[in-house]
Amino acid sequence: MILKQFKKVFYFSFMLQQLNKEVLLKRREALEQVIKRRFIYQPAFSLYGGVAGLYDYGPVGCAIKTNIEQYWREHFIIEEDLFEIAATILTPEPVLKASGHVDRFTDLLVCDSKTGTGYRADKIVTETLENRIAKEGDKLAADVKARYLAVIKDVDTFKEDKMKEVIAELQIKAPETGNDLTDPTPFNLMLPTIIGPSTKLPAFLRPETAQGMFLNFARLLEQNGGRVPFGAAQIGLGFRNEIAPRGGLLRCREFQMAEIEYFVDPTEKSTFKKFNKYINLEIPLLSRQLQAEAKQHQPFKMGDAVKEGIINNETLAYFICRTYLYLVEIGINPVNIRFRQHQADEMAHYSSDCWDAEIEMSSGWVECVGLADRSAYDLNAHSEATGQKLQAARKFKVPQPRQVLQVTLDKQKIGKELKKDGMALIKYVEALPDDEKQELSDYFQNHEDKVFNIDGKDLTLNRQLVKFEQKTMNVMEEKFIPHVIEPAFGIGRILQAIIEHSFNQRDDPQKTFFKFSPRVAPVKCSILSVVQSEEFDNVIFELTSSLKKLGISCKTDNAGVALGKKYARTDEIGIPFAITVDKETLTAQSVTLREIETTKQVRVPIAEVPRLILELSAGLILWTDVLTKYPLFAAKEEEA
Amino acid sequence: MILKQFKKVFYFSFMLQQLNKEVLLKRREALEQVIKRRFIYQPAFSLYGGVAGLYDYGPVGCAIKTNIEQYWREHFIIEEDLFEIAATILTPEPVLKASGHVDRFTDLLVCDSKTGTGYRADKIVTETLENRIAKEGDKLAADVKARYLAVIKDVDTFKEDKMKEVIAELQIKAPETGNDLTDPTPFNLMLPTIIGPSTKLPAFLRPETAQGMFLNFARLLEQNGGRVPFGAAQIGLGFRNEIAPRGGLLRCREFQMAEIEYFVDPTEKSTFKKFNKYINLEIPLLSRQLQAEAKQHQPFKMGDAVKEGIINNETLAYFICRTYLYLVEIGINPVNIRFRQHQADEMAHYSSDCWDAEIEMSSGWVECVGLADRSAYDLNAHSEATGQKLQAARKFKVPQPRQVLQVTLDKQKIGKELKKDGMALIKYVEALPDDEKQELSDYFQNHEDKVFNIDGKDLTLNRQLVKFEQKTMNVMEEKFIPHVIEPAFGIGRILQAIIEHSFNQRDDPQKTFFKFSPRVAPVKCSILSVVQSEEFDNVIFELTSSLKKLGISCKTDNAGVALGKKYARTDEIGIPFAITVDKETLTAQSVTLREIETTKQVRVPIAEVPRLILELSAGLILWTDVLTKYPLFAAKEEEA
Repeated sequence: MILKQFKKVFYFSFMLQQLNKEVLLKRREALEQVIKRRFIYQPAFSLYGGVAGLYDYGPVGCAIKTNIEQYWREHFIIEEDLFEIAATILTPEPVLKASGHVDRFTDLLVCDSKTGTGYRADKIVTETLENRIAKEGDKLAADVKARYLAVIKDVDTFKEDKMKEVIAELQIKAPETGNDLTDPTPFNLMLPTIIGPSTKLPAFLRPETAQGMFLNFARLLEQNGGRVPFGAAQIGLGFRNEIAPRGGLLRCREFQMAEIEYFVDPTEKSTFKKFNKYINLEIPLLSRQLQAEAKQHQPFKMGDAVKEGIINNETLAYFICRTYLYLVEIGINPVNIRFRQHQADEMAHYSSDCWDAEIEMSSGWVECVGLADRSAYDLNAHSEATGQKLQAARKFKVPQPRQVLQVTLDKQKIGKELKKDGMALIKYVEALPDDEKQELSDYFQNHEDKVFNIDGKDLTLNRQLVKFEQKTMNVMEEKFIPHVIEPAFGIGRILQAIIEHSFNQRDDPQKTFFKFSPRVAPVKCSILSVVQSEEFDNVIFELTSSLKKLGISCKTDNAGVALGKKYARTDEIGIPFAITVDKETLTAQSVTLREIETTKQVRVPIAEVPRLILELSAGLILWTDVLTKYPLFAAKEEEA
Repeated sequence: MILKQFKKVFYFSFMLQQLNKEVLLKRREALEQVIKRRFIYQPAFSLYGGVAGLYDYGPVGCAIKTNIEQYWREHFIIEEDLFEIAATILTPEPVLKASGHVDRFTDLLVCDSKTGTGYRADKIVTETLENRIAKEGDKLAADVKARYLAVIKDVDTFKEDKMKEVIAELQIKAPETGNDLTDPTPFNLMLPTIIGPSTKLPAFLRPETAQGMFLNFARLLEQNGGRVPFGAAQIGLGFRNEIAPRGGLLRCREFQMAEIEYFVDPTEKSTFKKFNKYINLEIPLLSRQLQAEAKQHQPFKMGDAVKEGIINNETLAYFICRTYLYLVEIGINPVNIRFRQHQADEMAHYSSDCWDAEIEMSSGWVECVGLADRSAYDLNAHSEATGQKLQAARKFKVPQPRQVLQVTLDKQKIGKELKKDGMALIKYVEALPDDEKQELSDYFQNHEDKVFNIDGKDLTLNRQLVKFEQKTMNVMEEKFIPHVIEPAFGIGRILQAIIEHSFNQRDDPQKTFFKFSPRVAPVKCSILSVVQSEEFDNVIFELTSSLKKLGISCKTDNAGVALGKKYARTDEIGIPFAITVDKETLTAQSVTLREIETTKQVRVPIAEVPRLILELSAGLILWTDVLTKYPLFAAKEEEA
């Protein structure tokens, strides 16, 4: 049972039930109001009319984002000893040409033939057909409806020609005007810029943070003493010039990502030692086969999923486990998470297996993390583009027999002919890496001479002076191009999921609150006075100072409004713990501590408060621990 | 005395002496090697030949950067209750038109008239003249030399015409070719892009994070209950298309910033309550007057600096104090920091007083933080561009007499003429804000009728039907545009300063180490074995796990190399504490703990280690506290 295994991380009772789409949809309107009123996030540049697909995070959203990222560092970077780097957003064109983005990172664009308004082709086809089905209902002929549904299912895989055909066949028009649409053309989703006043270097804003890690592979390998496996990680912005940004934070033009590139020896990726501790972890999987059978996701023991060949290898499976645990720990409901395997035709060209962590939200299941086995695609691509080898070496404890192409040079003749330079030529050719020896052998199949430029001199080698032989030799190491397992997190989408899953209403639906995991909560505690009074000022100041000294964010409120109203204000932005200063504080040096979901309160000595909040916020202790240690305080919550 | 006041934060003895430029320069070469070998940061896109002004941070640099930012959050955001936001980098053109960047954010560019290579005009003039002075030495006529020095001093303030004149007069040519230079033209330093496929919205990458905070002013004011003062903060990237990037991290095209916009009532900015605790803090200031007298910076008590009018107001002075303390706490030598006041002609057009925190590095004094009083410039600019008022209200406890423009309408005549609509017109005009009443009054000076569009209807008001009168009235509040105090931190420059100030060599200059403040250190501790042995594996694993659980980064090394070599490896990247597992660990459950600068060791029970490292890293205890608590361990450090 999925839920049982998470007893320890359940801060809140609500997690014991699945949040289905209907529940989330019902709350959505009230949530939108809070998001706006408390500036969790809002459209950017509203003063100037706004720009689609750009959002600013306000104080609450920004703090949650920072906390999600900070815990990502602890959970992944520190735990897995990853190398975190910060590469640049500005990326020169040749890099993205090599990675395939210049040619293939496109969506099909169609425009209104008269007004020029642009639409994403697959979206406009889907929406038009869905509208027709909804509008005409039973009047629609069964075969027509079936055709529509078939197109909707596959439209996102259509290439230009196929898309053009379908648009003509089904008479898809511009929705606002009814005008004809232009022919679908690939629109590159990267934002272009130009670097430098005179070089005028064409460049793009990176569409993913991954490339920066591939380009630094050799430097990082060196930091790891030449050993594989190791992982690189990066938290930063990506940019996509979306044709039709939508869904708030779900599809933005500028978005925060957290990516890992875990480099492994391809011969070793099926066994990953640390995976052992997770073989009994149950995770809801929607495998390729379940999708083919039109079935729902099912919980699998991860050990079994690998054994049965559902997940390609242990390394990939390990990161699925770690991702699942991360999402649950930051407050996503575990039963609203599933891992969906990509269909063979859905995967990126470089990918050999790919799973998306999808989270159920008010808009349905949303891809929030992609976990792909990118094989050796990227390192290969940059090696080819630059001529620089991006390889690691497999070192053997005992010599291993390997087929090796041996080069034998006629040293005497070469020495005679080239004198001193002869030795340089011999040394150079003998030291060529295996693949270049092979190239040279191939070259001599139909060339007589090969000219090498060595230390600035052109030296010629005739094919008569060199012999190539395949031999079995014992070697101590061999070179290989590592494969890459890539977990890529969309921070904005995860934040939206946390907000939706944490949002709740009390009996009075106007009284809303967020049940954030304390780790993620934007502000850890509030310090309130039971009534406004100057005699509390000093206590509040001292307590605030000692909390701040520990780096704990807190919000004070000594205003002249009812305590209930103060609670409501802090509940609305999800401050998990409220400290209240009252008459007894002045005599007994104690305060009350209230938890947001249960609204239960305990009485705690002031001196113990900062440490308590610190441990609660770091997840070192739970509220239930606090309840067993301190006496309950029975106060009626005052009405606002 | 500057140093005495920092006794508590001195982690290291080296801070007791000033690091002059010569010392820093001498170490520079060895430092460069470490920066490269340990991938602290390196030029980006080296595989592709590199791009000037773009750098990637490797694991060590990235971790220091993260720690600097995290402590910035604690020191400023949490301590001052600032609203942190995350606004977008993509910024539509009209926003930057209003802020003045489209027109004024330029450098003068000159090009080689034949090759087209571009140069920053002020730099090429300076370099050419400095070369001539150095080359010709005493042969240079005194008046010529004086002329050169005068130009060098002021060249960065020259406008196009003046620059053109000087280039002609002094015969400045392209340095590589000797070709003529093209006329100086302003080159805009913003990187351009285009958003959207059909809207094709011209946009730029933000040159500073500040504008995002101004645009969200109204939302943040609302979160603060309409009260001023409050501060916004943002940590993120800025972009400048530098003509001549140089100096490594000092002048990049993409750079991390941390900015605060502190909004204050202009009538209140000269008194700032929290400033009181700093009136006796001594900070080295290089005031406008000291510069005019060609004097060095001098320590000033901050209270006196405000009283004597050297610093414009207490709010600005408060942030100078906080900035100084921040820099010292993260490991900048306090005697290598000075605050330099801008000359009147050097300040940005919007600024009323401006101080730069400059840090002495191997390249001289470098501006690392700018503290400007931006007055109401930006909020005004965006108000004017959008027609939306960006104001706050000053509320009075007792009514205050104010000059108010009173409007009296001839209600009877208007009612007769416009019937029902008359009431709407009257209501509308009476509710106009003060400045629009003034505009209306001005308008009627030379117009007969004014047409208002009210609820979709055009309603005309004749000037005969309205009277304007200046009256003294008692009001409970008045509107105003807040002023802004802006501390803006360049994270890359600060990181470079920390690295330079922390770098050191032992008696053997090959043995280098960084004496980072533990707060900033990239990795908090290493766990080493005295010799390689499987019997240590379990202890190391357990210790590592318990450190990671507290979120502490650590590096393990159980390799078969001498302990001295292991220490050298961790010293080189500045890991402040090394835990060593030895024979005694297995019997007595204790390890040794070594501090990087002194290389002194103590023996500590394993169970106490994680907590000790946590408290040392957070700056809650110092190494000297550890020395008094645990017995010294006298081990000779083994040679590598």
